Amino acid sequence: VISNFADRLMAAIAARGTPACVGLDPLPEKLPRGLKPIAEAGADSNAQAILQFGRGVIEAIAAMVPAIKINIAFFEPFGEHGLRAYSMLIREAHAAGLMVIGDVKRGDIGHTSGQYAKAHLSDGPEGSGVADAITVNPYFGSEGVSPFVEAAQVTGRGLFVLVQTSNESAAQVQGLELPNGLTVCQEVARLVQDWASADGLIGSGGYSCVGAVVSPRDLESTARIRELMPNCIFLVPGFGAQGRTVDEVATCFTPDGTGAIVTASRSVIYAYDEPKYRDAGPSWKEAVRAGCRDFVESLRQVLG
Amino acid sequence: VISNFADRLMAAIAARGTPACVGLDPLPEKLPRGLKPIAEAGADSNAQAILQFGRGVIEAIAAMVPAIKINIAFFEPFGEHGLRAYSMLIREAHAAGLMVIGDVKRGDIGHTSGQYAKAHLSDGPEGSGVADAITVNPYFGSEGVSPFVEAAQVTGRGLFVLVQTSNESAAQVQGLELPNGLTVCQEVARLVQDWASADGLIGSGGYSCVGAVVSPRDLESTARIRELMPNCIFLVPGFGAQGRTVDEVATCFTPDGTGAIVTASRSVIYAYDEPKYRDAGPSWKEAVRAGCRDFVESLRQVLG
Repeated sequence: VISNFADRLMAAIAARGTPACVGLDPLPEKLPRGLKPIAEAGADSNAQAILQFGRGVIEAIAAMVPAIKINIAFFEPFGEHGLRAYSMLIREAHAAGLMVIGDVKRGDIGHTSGQYAKAHLSDGPEGSGVADAITVNPYFGSEGVSPFVEAAQVTGRGLFVLVQTSNESAAQVQGLELPNGLTVCQEVARLVQDWASADGLIGSGGYSCVGAVVSPRDLESTARIRELMPNCIFLVPGFGAQGRTVDEVATCFTPDGTGAIVTASRSVIYAYDEPKYRDAGPSWKEAVRAGCRDFVESLRQVLG
Repeated sequence: VISNFADRLMAAIAARGTPACVGLDPLPEKLPRGLKPIAEAGADSNAQAILQFGRGVIEAIAAMVPAIKINIAFFEPFGEHGLRAYSMLIREAHAAGLMVIGDVKRGDIGHTSGQYAKAHLSDGPEGSGVADAITVNPYFGSEGVSPFVEAAQVTGRGLFVLVQTSNESAAQVQGLELPNGLTVCQEVARLVQDWASADGLIGSGGYSCVGAVVSPRDLESTARIRELMPNCIFLVPGFGAQGRTVDEVATCFTPDGTGAIVTASRSVIYAYDEPKYRDAGPSWKEAVRAGCRDFVESLRQVLG
């Protein structure tokens, strides 16, 4: 029996006692001394460096959080070497007991989304790392998303459809107001709820394997979006470096305090660059661990 | 001096006398006998098979068309092997005198789009294949697109921002009507024209290195979009298998008969499966060549 992704994620959150998810967006030039590749290093050396760094981050955080979000954009500049590192880190995160969200933001017409779904949500060959869920772009409408939903249902994986993103200029498209009183992203929220509540997708906890990326940029809009998507888990980016506050993030949870997973990336993985973590320990991983602990603590305030 | 992408593309179209672009979307199960991998083949064998096939397609079409569009989604299921094949085919298409559009449909917040731009629009290490232009998703607004624009300007490459796509359900998001009388995709068209007409992006021919993906699904909307984006080259998908007609495609060109490049994928690369090309010649490549010739001929009707 393949269990529902949403049920698995909720169980992992309950087991760790926190909905915190660390985002791994590794830039070679930001790596700790000793891991940082030389300026002229090739794709292979850069990929090796971010692989070593990712391993250290996984080791530092695995006991504290239920999930890691790995952004493939930071691996693609290193070509095939980068992609191998991405896949290896997924496998190693799984071995360390973490669930993995592959932040790939794919989407195309249905015929082509089917290939992306095969790449990122289907069981690969023995030993290849496949994420438990990925992020998906809604611009093509239901046909562009349904191949991901079908693959997720077959393999017990999940997806988070982009609804309201964290950047200011998102409003240029997502924030356009429609005659029915909704904005474009709120209309997308309605679509995602439709897709999420189709037969066989909702787990025993009431959440669907189809979730949504929702940044609480605008409190009023976020509250409305939360109402529009009762069956969707929200993947909430932007805690920490992107500046979302505790109050804003609280809006993403349902009244029972579930239904969201919150990510912080740069504030955790580059904690060793912060003066406040200078005395965390001899290894950079101690600073990452301390940064992760503070992230988890600050999220506790959200949930009271 | 790095010349403008739009000028280079227009010159290539003029040199071949056609705005036809072949789309390479290779599925292992559709390959010709002799190239088709066995059912249980691993990622490496599958990647080898689509690499061989892509080489044959390039050889068959290179003398007839100015450009090839390679869709990375069809390579990603084969992981690092697939990505290596994608990069090698870009390099080999260049060696054969073709311009290359990397159909990658990337897009994220600015910080992250910068990494995708580095991966797909920046000069890679010696010997790596980098496309002349890529496709980009507009859902994040200007911040998500500007890193691609900056990279394109620096390296003389280009991008095509998704505006109106070819699938029916695109209307669920792109077709939403706004109070100002425009639809969402027409509003996106206005944004893209803004981005395209920024300082330094328009070449001597009047077109920008920032173009748009426009499928002429709706004649009236397409005519309006063409008016809204006078400086943008349209990348027009869906000729052939996706069913767009000559009249529909004609709407994508400017009054002087330029400003668009039209792609056909399955109807050309799988021509050997069509009874009409059975007698094209002893090799499957003869059928592909004949399919490409027919595609070019049918486009001639568009331009009178």
